[in-house]
This record gives sequence, structure tokens and C-alpha cells, in this order.
Amino acid sequence: MEFKVNSKELEKLLTKIIPAVPTRTPMPILENFLFEIKDGMLTIYATDLEISLKSSINIVADDNSNIVVPAKLLYDVVRSLGDTTIHFEISGDGKLNLSTDNGQYVLSYLDSSEFPEIPSFPEENESDDLAETSIIGLDLKEALDRTAFAMSKEEMRPAMMGTLFEFIEEGLRFVSTDGHRLVNFLNKKISHDIDNQYIVPEKAISVLQKVVDEKDVKLYMSKTHISFKLSDIELITRLIGQKYPDYKSVIPLENEFLMTVETKELHSAIKRMMLFSTSNTRRVKFSINENNLEISAEDLDIGASGKENIKCEYGGDPIDIGFNSAYVNDILSHLSAEKEIVFRLHSPTKAVIVVPKEARENEDLMMLIMPVRLNN
Amino acid sequence: MEFKVNSKELEKLLTKIIPAVPTRTPMPILENFLFEIKDGMLTIYATDLEISLKSSINIVADDNSNIVVPAKLLYDVVRSLGDTTIHFEISGDGKLNLSTDNGQYVLSYLDSSEFPEIPSFPEENESDDLAETSIIGLDLKEALDRTAFAMSKEEMRPAMMGTLFEFIEEGLRFVSTDGHRLVNFLNKKISHDIDNQYIVPEKAISVLQKVVDEKDVKLYMSKTHISFKLSDIELITRLIGQKYPDYKSVIPLENEFLMTVETKELHSAIKRMMLFSTSNTRRVKFSINENNLEISAEDLDIGASGKENIKCEYGGDPIDIGFNSAYVNDILSHLSAEKEIVFRLHSPTKAVIVVPKEARENEDLMMLIMPVRLNN
Repeated sequence: MEFKVNSKELEKLLTKIIPAVPTRTPMPILENFLFEIKDGMLTIYATDLEISLKSSINIVADDNSNIVVPAKLLYDVVRSLGDTTIHFEISGDGKLNLSTDNGQYVLSYLDSSEFPEIPSFPEENESDDLAETSIIGLDLKEALDRTAFAMSKEEMRPAMMGTLFEFIEEGLRFVSTDGHRLVNFLNKKISHDIDNQYIVPEKAISVLQKVVDEKDVKLYMSKTHISFKLSDIELITRLIGQKYPDYKSVIPLENEFLMTVETKELHSAIKRMMLFSTSNTRRVKFSINENNLEISAEDLDIGASGKENIKCEYGGDPIDIGFNSAYVNDILSHLSAEKEIVFRLHSPTKAVIVVPKEARENEDLMMLIMPVRLNN
Repeated sequence: MEFKVNSKELEKLLTKIIPAVPTRTPMPILENFLFEIKDGMLTIYATDLEISLKSSINIVADDNSNIVVPAKLLYDVVRSLGDTTIHFEISGDGKLNLSTDNGQYVLSYLDSSEFPEIPSFPEENESDDLAETSIIGLDLKEALDRTAFAMSKEEMRPAMMGTLFEFIEEGLRFVSTDGHRLVNFLNKKISHDIDNQYIVPEKAISVLQKVVDEKDVKLYMSKTHISFKLSDIELITRLIGQKYPDYKSVIPLENEFLMTVETKELHSAIKRMMLFSTSNTRRVKFSINENNLEISAEDLDIGASGKENIKCEYGGDPIDIGFNSAYVNDILSHLSAEKEIVFRLHSPTKAVIVVPKEARENEDLMMLIMPVRLNN
């Protein structure tokens, strides 16, 4: 059978799907795209068994067919072509012939029956407890951009290797934590009738951050999977089937000392302190007095140290408190859009809350960072 | 003692010098800058024992002093500062104190006597057979940009791990080769009275490619070293003390078949063929007939192949000849400024010459590529 497609349109399609193709896998079949040609529509799938991506374009085809083609080679060939028509021909001997005005390229294909099955929403899940809602693309993107960095990379605690989507009365809450820091972001604009929570794994989050645009995103959730339907692509991922830790219990309620500081100024100073906080703990010390924050770090091994003074608004008891400088840096990077931020403190051993000084409408954003011991 | 310097001026200076600081070395002292403060002038040196870089700025200093300071840490601190004045204070206890309006930073320094000696031109070499000449910066840059890629990376043949600077009556010739391809670039604008040749090692070439600008470059050559004096920096490197291979003997003189082709079109096709020429030999086949060049490649392991036809001007005997596609790609990348190029061929086993169709004034540029066997 044969079909034709414009090289640039196909490139655009493959660029969307290829993030799901694993680069190293014990299952070589996953290094392929599944091509489904049906009634003048080409649908391309890829999966690493955790996430799947799927997208379609209209083509000129004379028949229906499903084949499995080497993802990286096809992608590299297609994107190295100029703007041209590619004529695909599937021959019976396992060869896929591509021709353009000046070139012919032959790839091997496999039978589609070897490709793993991909869950489908909502069709096959109708009997299931299927929940659904819709969210503005930019809102989803903002929530993920704010929270993704704090997910855990440690396989010991699988639940924390994802972002919690918690549907509550006030809206949709996104939570991520690795035990050292935590982000809690509530979007109050999303109305829904769901009373449930889902943990979306890191890989899906990072692909979503790349593909989500301003258009609406439809969410479908079964007990085991979640589907994100964008205007031009669908991402389906396994959910992490664990209980998310009780994050509320670690959020202190009465941190009474408030320090207000300019985000950019503090961030710039922290970056310099990171050069001196190179030991295991990467410790930076905050010494807070009335309207003055002194931050300092030292590297005893090489006999180097740094110290800076920053203006702040602070009326509480003087306090010395230590942090991992890399974690402070992460938090400040994800608050860089806020002119001023507020640190809510209580003591050198209790979790510290960091929030924007000016809350945005319909949003609640709170970051939390655990201190490190100053004397050890 | 104390001195003051603007952070941005110091950053500019350190940025120029840091390429000579080795990243991994069994001699930790080389991971430092040598600071020489003399009569209101700060001169900074770095060396990896093969190349040395040196540059100066005027500063406000109250005394003279030489110290050795950790290169990467100082560079990172200085470039993380905004535009400000840094006040340096060298204390007697091995500590270097830097202060700005808001910050204090302490680094350890070492005594300058531990730093290796750096050769100096021309002062200390006056008794030597010192040769000197001058070359326009952009001319030197062009010559290096054209030739550098073909230097050998194999330590078995040390002479080929550098670029030959051959001073001849017609000008200055630059030659590089790794035995598979060769570049021969003659600049006829350089007048000199030198009758000698020098092999400049790869590291020096790659640093020069970064630092040379349009201003004149002074060259000083002793028997063992060459110095490149730019307007704001001096690079001194050891020469490779070996005999350069007799490159003239491999350049065929009577390749009688000429193929003229558009550089861009061929380059674009070669990039696609590289996707299919993935075996050890990375072979691409050129089949040349009257006014048609067919290039093809195949990967037997994965059962994939590609073939393209390109218009050319060719009136010689039909010929099939194989090349390493990566080497063809390298050559075409370094001829990308030429609209059309000419391949001069003789037979499938003899070296092929590639030249621009339109020679530039006062330049002779010739590239050579060895074919690979088609049937093995």
C-alpha cells in the first residue's frame, strides 16, 4: 500500500511523539513508532510502557495498514529533508520505501502485532470509574513549572517520584516534595466534581511541560491511568499506585517571624554562596536581624568563605538558620517572577515557609524548605 | 598589600586566560592563576605546561606582589558579581580577601615561587634564532578555521597532532592531515623573510580560534616555542619537535576528471547518507556519470539504505568511488562558504582533490580525501 505526506508536516508530528521513545531499553520494539493508517488518517504512537504519546494527521492513502518503523532513523531522515512530498510504499517483504524527487530511502518495518497495546480513553474505559475535567493549557503549564522541580529522584519512595493532583472543593491542588522541600500550588479556577487524587509520574510531567500550549487540555482518569488530551496530541500515563505522604502534617501553621526580601537580590547572593558551600551539606547560613539578612558559607577544605548583607524587612527575634544552598537556589529560581518574597520562620530546626509577597488572584502558592543543622 | 579593580574588567581578563587552565591535571598548581602586580599593572598568567596565556590591565595598587590564586573559584566569584569595584587585600596568612559593597569573600593563595616558569618573548630569547613576523588577525583565523579539523587525534603520530606553519617564498602555508584527509591552505599576502617550518599543537590552535580577532597578530618563533601576541593577550606554546610528514608526495598531480557540484546540495544529501552509513567504514558511494552524481549508502545490519541523485558537471569516464561519509561531511562543512566546488578524480583507489570552483585572491585552498574500497 502507499501514502503521501508533506515532509514538514510529518516532521512536526514526529517531533511531538518522539519524547515517548526510550533511548535505552531492554525491549527493542519500543524504539519504534507504531503507524496506524486508517481512512485517510495517519496516527502515530510511541510508548515506553509508562507513558504513551499519540497524534494524527490527514494523509492521502489508498488503503489501511498498521506497521512498526524505527523511530530515530525515520525521524532523522524526515527532518533532514527540505520541504517536499514523501511517498511511502509498504512492500510485502518487510521494506518501507520512501521516495522524494531526488532520493530513495529504504527502512525495515515490523508487524504491528509486536507493538505493546496502548490504553485508550475514554472509549474502552466507559465501564470504569472514569473521571474527567478540563483545564486551560497555560494554567496546567504554570502549575507544572512551579512544582516539578521538587519531585523526588529517589526510587526508595516511589510516591514522591511524581506530582500529586489533588481535586478538592476549592479547585485543583498540585503538590510535589522530596522530603527536603515541598511545593503546594492551588489553582482555584478549575471547577470539577471530582473527589479524588492521582500521582502523575515524573516522565509524564516533563513531557507535558514541553507539549502543553495555551489551548484547553482534557483530563480523563481511570484507577490506573490518566490521559491528557491536548489539541493535537494525547499523552496517556500510568498513575503511581501508592499513597501520597501526608504532606499537610509537615506544613507548620504558626511560623510567626516574617522576613520580606527582594527575590532577585537574594537569588544573586545565593548563587555566589553556592561557590563556597561545596561540602556535602552545601550549607548556607542565614543570620537574620532587624532589617538585615547576612548570608554566609564556607568551604573548610580549600579555606575559602563568602559573606553578604542584604536589606530585608524583619521584626522577629534574631535567628541563625542553615539551609542547603542548592535547595534555596531551586526555590528562588521558581519564584523569580515574584518581586518580593516572604520567609515565615519559627526556629532553626523547624520547616520554613516561603511565599510570594503579593498573592495572585485564584492562586495559592507555598514552598517549604527544611533547615539543616548549623553545628555538626 | 591592596589593589582595586572593576569586576567586569577583571571578568573580561579572566575569561581570556582561563582556557589555559587544565581541568584535570596531576599538578594541582596548574589549576591556579599567577597574579603579578607590578607598578600599577596586573598581569595574569595560566599554563598547562604546553600552552600559556598572559594578559594585563591597569589597576590601582599600593605595592608590588606575586601570588597564585585558585582559577575556577576566583573566576566563578568574579563573574557572578554585578558591575562593582572589587577591593583585593593580600594578608600575610595566605588569605586573599575580596570585598565589595555588600560582600566579603576569602580565598587561599599560594606563593608564586611554586608556579612553573613561563617562557617570555622576545626578551629572553634574543640570543636565540628568533624569527618574527606579523599577520592580520582575520587571515590567521580563516587559515585555522579552514585547516584545524583535519589534524590527527592519534598519539601514535605526534607530528600530525598539530598544524604545520610553513614559511615559503609565496607566503605562509598551513597544512593539516590525519592520513585520511588533508588541508593545504596558502596565504600569499604575508610577506616575511623566514625560511622555516613549525608545527603548532592542537590545543594552541583551538584556543587561538577563540581569541584571535581582526587586529594584527605578532608571531615570534624560537626553536622550541612560538608566541602569538594579540592586541590584548599573548599565547605561548611549545612547538611539536618532530618532522612533519612529506605531505606533497600524497597530493596527486594529474587527476584529470573534474566534477563540479553545488556545495550546499551535496552537503545536504551527504548528511542524509550519514544516517545510513553507520557501519565501521561509514561508507558512502559516489557513482558519477555524465552530469549526474548518484550517492548511496546502506546499513546491512538494520536493512536500511538511501540513494540520491544530484546534478553535476562531469565529462570524464564513469566512475564509482567510495568515501568515509563523515570525512566528506567535514570537508563540505569547511567549504560551506563556496557556492560550487570541484572534485578532481582519477580512479577509485587514488586520492581525490576538492577545491573551490572560484579561487579567492591571494589564497590557495586545497583539500584532499582518500577513498575507501567499495567491495570488501
